[in-house]
Amino acid sequence: MSGQRKMHLMAFLLAGPTCHHHGMWRHPETENAFLDPAAWEHIARVLEQGRFDSVFFADILAFYDSFGGKYDTILGRGGQMGLLDPIPLLTVMARVTRHIGLGATISTSFFNHFHIARTLGTLDVISGGRAAWNIVTSANPQEAHNFGMTGLPGKDERYDRAEEMLLACLQLWNSWADDAFVLDKKVGVFTDPSKVREINFKGNWISSRGPNTVPRSPQGHPVIMQAGSSERGRAFCAKHAEIVFTLQHSKADMQEFYKEMKERVRAEGRDPDELVILPSLDPIIGETDAIARERQSYMNALVDPTLALALVSGHLGIDFSKYPLDARIDDLDLDVAVKGSFDVLAQGARAEGLTLGQAAQRFGISELTPQVVGAPATVADYLIDLFDDRACDGFIITPTVFPGTFEQFVRAVVPELQARGKFRTEYPGTTLRGNLRG
Amino acid sequence: MSGQRKMHLMAFLLAGPTCHHHGMWRHPETENAFLDPAAWEHIARVLEQGRFDSVFFADILAFYDSFGGKYDTILGRGGQMGLLDPIPLLTVMARVTRHIGLGATISTSFFNHFHIARTLGTLDVISGGRAAWNIVTSANPQEAHNFGMTGLPGKDERYDRAEEMLLACLQLWNSWADDAFVLDKKVGVFTDPSKVREINFKGNWISSRGPNTVPRSPQGHPVIMQAGSSERGRAFCAKHAEIVFTLQHSKADMQEFYKEMKERVRAEGRDPDELVILPSLDPIIGETDAIARERQSYMNALVDPTLALALVSGHLGIDFSKYPLDARIDDLDLDVAVKGSFDVLAQGARAEGLTLGQAAQRFGISELTPQVVGAPATVADYLIDLFDDRACDGFIITPTVFPGTFEQFVRAVVPELQARGKFRTEYPGTTLRGNLRG
Repeated sequence: MSGQRKMHLMAFLLAGPTCHHHGMWRHPETENAFLDPAAWEHIARVLEQGRFDSVFFADILAFYDSFGGKYDTILGRGGQMGLLDPIPLLTVMARVTRHIGLGATISTSFFNHFHIARTLGTLDVISGGRAAWNIVTSANPQEAHNFGMTGLPGKDERYDRAEEMLLACLQLWNSWADDAFVLDKKVGVFTDPSKVREINFKGNWISSRGPNTVPRSPQGHPVIMQAGSSERGRAFCAKHAEIVFTLQHSKADMQEFYKEMKERVRAEGRDPDELVILPSLDPIIGETDAIARERQSYMNALVDPTLALALVSGHLGIDFSKYPLDARIDDLDLDVAVKGSFDVLAQGARAEGLTLGQAAQRFGISELTPQVVGAPATVADYLIDLFDDRACDGFIITPTVFPGTFEQFVRAVVPELQARGKFRTEYPGTTLRGNLRG
Repeated sequence: MSGQRKMHLMAFLLAGPTCHHHGMWRHPETENAFLDPAAWEHIARVLEQGRFDSVFFADILAFYDSFGGKYDTILGRGGQMGLLDPIPLLTVMARVTRHIGLGATISTSFFNHFHIARTLGTLDVISGGRAAWNIVTSANPQEAHNFGMTGLPGKDERYDRAEEMLLACLQLWNSWADDAFVLDKKVGVFTDPSKVREINFKGNWISSRGPNTVPRSPQGHPVIMQAGSSERGRAFCAKHAEIVFTLQHSKADMQEFYKEMKERVRAEGRDPDELVILPSLDPIIGETDAIARERQSYMNALVDPTLALALVSGHLGIDFSKYPLDARIDDLDLDVAVKGSFDVLAQGARAEGLTLGQAAQRFGISELTPQVVGAPATVADYLIDLFDDRACDGFIITPTVFPGTFEQFVRAVVPELQARGKFRTEYPGTTLRGNLRG
């Protein structure tokens, strides 16, 4: 890294009505054009103009039905859902851009390692080295049922499997030497086969012979991204991840997480700069702070509390339709399926002594992602303060208006960050990994 | 179908050095730009300009190593291989075209039904209803080893499974009503959830709850394509397929297959026009017949007999490095793993009493796909004769020079076909299915 430390920015995407803020699709300016590839191409161009490191698609492989055993609320009222497969969407974005990274969430519980190595390898090759893999292990039985499974194993087994799968994929991505192609038409030598190796991976869960069919990309292999906040998740990140997508509510919490993760990375024998720590943030921007606050009030009033409770149910795998809305979170005897997310949820709700109903309403407002509200300079101040004080290496920006939030951020906040020397004006590298470390 | 019966044309693609003719990548004009998405975009534009119904990617999920237990010959000398995942390639092609169909080969033995429903559904939606699924059950143990399996079940079980998988996918693709979206921002109604149904599919091999996350495409669901020539394959096609990719060597064989398949389709209670029968054909075109014949000689001399024998080994799962090259095919005691392909191979070789070495050499010349050689009018005569005499409904054109064969065909042969009223000058429909039936 040369010169002043620079912030990294990533955009959170989900192919559906809601990213984090449950009112997103209901905002008058939101296009709801998630089925139109041209809309994704537009977003990619806007974000690349704003010199974002990368986009990434979250993904959900079912409609949550934990709430009363039906998906009617989530689907009917427009909750989080992944309507389309991220790989084709990232591919269309790749073709109208040259620099921005392209991250796909792919579950290690539902997809085969060889498919992952091949499809992400292909995206990496045809984008010139810009793919990223956001590794999730999945915890929702609804997703399992779609894939023909009766349920999912426990977290430890899922992580063991994820770890093997990642190792197998990394070996597959590195099974071709960079100089394997010969292409001598006269003699008839296409490659040097000694430069393309079998991997013969044999784990407890995963085995693969290899080699990959896909040659190495310009960045070698896709960037590894993860979002685990549990002990197991943190250990996985420290060992393997190059980007961690995190969520904390206070600067002190962010700083503590940051310090811990950088130390863990160092303890793994890696350069701490190899892990870029990005908390998610939901900006609501206006010409003035007052306008932005009014926009925030307008935005947050669009949250449907029933939808919010249904989504809490979905995320945690608990049917909250059974619990009284006025019960305090602390008093509920919950069978917690998703410990990581629940910690984050409970962290805020417990601190303020919220009831279930209040917590759900709060949850629907950006799904606990902190909102930063103000004029462009105010937003920039907030980001720079966290960045300078080592609470993070940058941010994952989630939209409240789609694509309006990204357009506003790129047009008004990015220039502020650049003017203060905290964000790049040109891409330093030629690949996603190059930009993350540049 | 209104007016004169029109021919259908499809282009055979494979993301690697060899489609059918083993000399393809060694031709001086072949670009070997299979890793460059712009090269695929070019092909798509050329073929759409030529009013082709569709492209389709064959796929191979491993490097064959049946020949002496090593993949060195296939990989080193440039045999058939699927270097990249077809889905991203078809996606880039979708974005630079408006009409042409986009077919992906996806194996029912290695991919999960929900993934197939989602990724092909996504391609179908973002292309405006132009996706096709070429269903294969896969027979190669090398592919199984990459995916972590020790081997593959027998043909019957593979077909049973494929049939269930197709039914599950069709139900998933039809799990959304066309008018499910409401998008009422004021009231907060995103969809009418009663118009999105669970499928609760439960077969012997496949189960899936659904609904699909992907809404219905403009053509409802991807077009179904298949290439089985065995009894089981023919039965599957008659029941389910809308395109059959076939390979026969004589006009009489083609006519017999055509008649049989149309009758089988009728016996299934379907309109015989719902199955479009397309034999593959390898055109070698020149300004004059004499030039074309010289080009053919040049082309065929590029075939490497050792590579040819290695590919025969790969296709049949038999190590031919163990057999003497001068043995007559009929005299070999072969453990035949791929009956369908072998029949096709043996059909020609037996008729002429070829040795193994001669048959391999012959195989390398377009992998038994008939070559039609001549000036544009000669090629058009040949196609029209087969088409008019109900040997087929059109053709799958495979390239010998890439992308040269397609450029020549579109520029010189298509206008001949159009001038004689045998091929469309404009696309009749707005989806692939619409064009196939138009």
